[in-house]
Amino acid sequence: MVGHKNPDTDSICSAIAYAYFRNKRVELGQLKGEAVPARQGELNPETKFVLEKFGFEPPELITDGTGKKVILVDHSEKAQSLDNIEKAEIIAIIDHHKIGDITTPNPIVFIAMPCGCTASIIKGLFEMYNIEIPPKIAGIMLASILSDTICFKSVTTTKKDIEAAKDLAKIAGIEDIEAFAMEMFKAKSDVAGKTPRELIFRDFKEFNMAGNVVAISQLELVSLDLVKDIKDSLYEEMKKIKEEKNYHSFLLMLTDIMKEGTELLVLTDNPKIIEKAFNKEVRERSIWLEGVMSRKKQVVPPLEKAFFGE
Amino acid sequence: MVGHKNPDTDSICSAIAYAYFRNKRVELGQLKGEAVPARQGELNPETKFVLEKFGFEPPELITDGTGKKVILVDHSEKAQSLDNIEKAEIIAIIDHHKIGDITTPNPIVFIAMPCGCTASIIKGLFEMYNIEIPPKIAGIMLASILSDTICFKSVTTTKKDIEAAKDLAKIAGIEDIEAFAMEMFKAKSDVAGKTPRELIFRDFKEFNMAGNVVAISQLELVSLDLVKDIKDSLYEEMKKIKEEKNYHSFLLMLTDIMKEGTELLVLTDNPKIIEKAFNKEVRERSIWLEGVMSRKKQVVPPLEKAFFGE
Repeated sequence: MVGHKNPDTDSICSAIAYAYFRNKRVELGQLKGEAVPARQGELNPETKFVLEKFGFEPPELITDGTGKKVILVDHSEKAQSLDNIEKAEIIAIIDHHKIGDITTPNPIVFIAMPCGCTASIIKGLFEMYNIEIPPKIAGIMLASILSDTICFKSVTTTKKDIEAAKDLAKIAGIEDIEAFAMEMFKAKSDVAGKTPRELIFRDFKEFNMAGNVVAISQLELVSLDLVKDIKDSLYEEMKKIKEEKNYHSFLLMLTDIMKEGTELLVLTDNPKIIEKAFNKEVRERSIWLEGVMSRKKQVVPPLEKAFFGE
Repeated sequence: MVGHKNPDTDSICSAIAYAYFRNKRVELGQLKGEAVPARQGELNPETKFVLEKFGFEPPELITDGTGKKVILVDHSEKAQSLDNIEKAEIIAIIDHHKIGDITTPNPIVFIAMPCGCTASIIKGLFEMYNIEIPPKIAGIMLASILSDTICFKSVTTTKKDIEAAKDLAKIAGIEDIEAFAMEMFKAKSDVAGKTPRELIFRDFKEFNMAGNVVAISQLELVSLDLVKDIKDSLYEEMKKIKEEKNYHSFLLMLTDIMKEGTELLVLTDNPKIIEKAFNKEVRERSIWLEGVMSRKKQVVPPLEKAFFGE
């Protein structure tokens, strides 16, 4: 049971919640084989805060899929999955992103829904199978939804997410959802004492776009002032990483949760393609994207269109 | 709403059933946009029999996806989908096969389950959304399950398929499920008056295996005696098609529904890889596969293993 590389709160908490759900079904004799939640990398400070609050240990760290039976949550792209994922046996996929390039030799369970968070889909599965959600699990599922939807402000938010979050808050005994979200976001915005490299890789994903590797990182911040003094060193570090990994483009989304917009730091072999995607000129080294908060819904699709030339 | 190329009963009937289901949800204000069932090719004699029995017209024929909004049922492989599928907007995928190579630029609904038939999954969706199944729709959904699972004899059959079929038979007013299945299989076994080419393309699928195109056709017959006299001309026709299309391998499954086994006619650039897959020598031009009735579960996976060298 594993989420994507550079895990966010949904990738970690949905792995824990789905493992709990699946193990309950094993207890009921509906399925076989105990599931263990896992993670592909370091926890970000938001996820640490959430796991501590609800009393969970960080899941086991695994990075290689060779010979393993795995369930993928929160992704269906090879580039975001375990190393050697083609040597793993994939048992199931639960995701809310675009359909990725993972294929399987046998039929499996694959459930994807265009909602804001994997945890909202898992909430539906608990209901479908009449399995009760314990308060601690409800707490981390609520946190996943608030994290992925930026407390319902992201355009990815659906009615399903809001309804699921309200139900889960009741079960978890959380009365003020917004206050809880703000606690999480303050934890997430913590940049103090981190190296530029740590910040860049905190929420980092690679995409294959028409044969070009495009890396897109995101830092969600309660204010852009938090990174004002370190923007130069972030940009210098991005240059090094771009060269090391030979990326076509490397983009860093500095997302202002309160102002509801993103400053996109741009490093690319072809500025025209980035400018075409967002219909805006790159000024100095960045583009301001008003209203943009979602990588998956507002950044990846226009880039893919521009790269695939559609 | 469209099933795979060279449609079988499930591909046609699940398109009709899912279109009905989706349009009901549109009526209820849950979704937008009317869905129209479609097909990618000629109906086989079994499907014709089923549609006539329950009073349905053949769905609209479409072959090109350019500019269309489509929902894929019963497949998730590009090779089996509409021409120019990358120029279509895929709205949803409902399937029970291995996860194919279709990817999307945006998050969509993708529901795959490892059961015997797409119609069994759609039955679950009707229940989840509390939408009543009309007797005619239940009839074609039952027919899909009986067709795909060869009346529950195929190894692909799951508890879910059997339970769904029993419920659907009640709704459709069909008392003797086995007698109904036998009527369908007799219709399906009808080879009289057909050209070898028509028979070969009746249930034909292409697969990309480690860069090689492998075509696998299947004829399900109540007895292999039905094709005894035309086997030579089938084989000659396969040779022509293999050359025209430049296939690495072309396999024809002559499946005996009653004896529960398959004579596999083999044409290949590399007999060793086929022999390795099934751990049996090709004698003259074929291999007898005892107990093998399912392309997807008993023929494709061992071939993929052999091709990918795992």
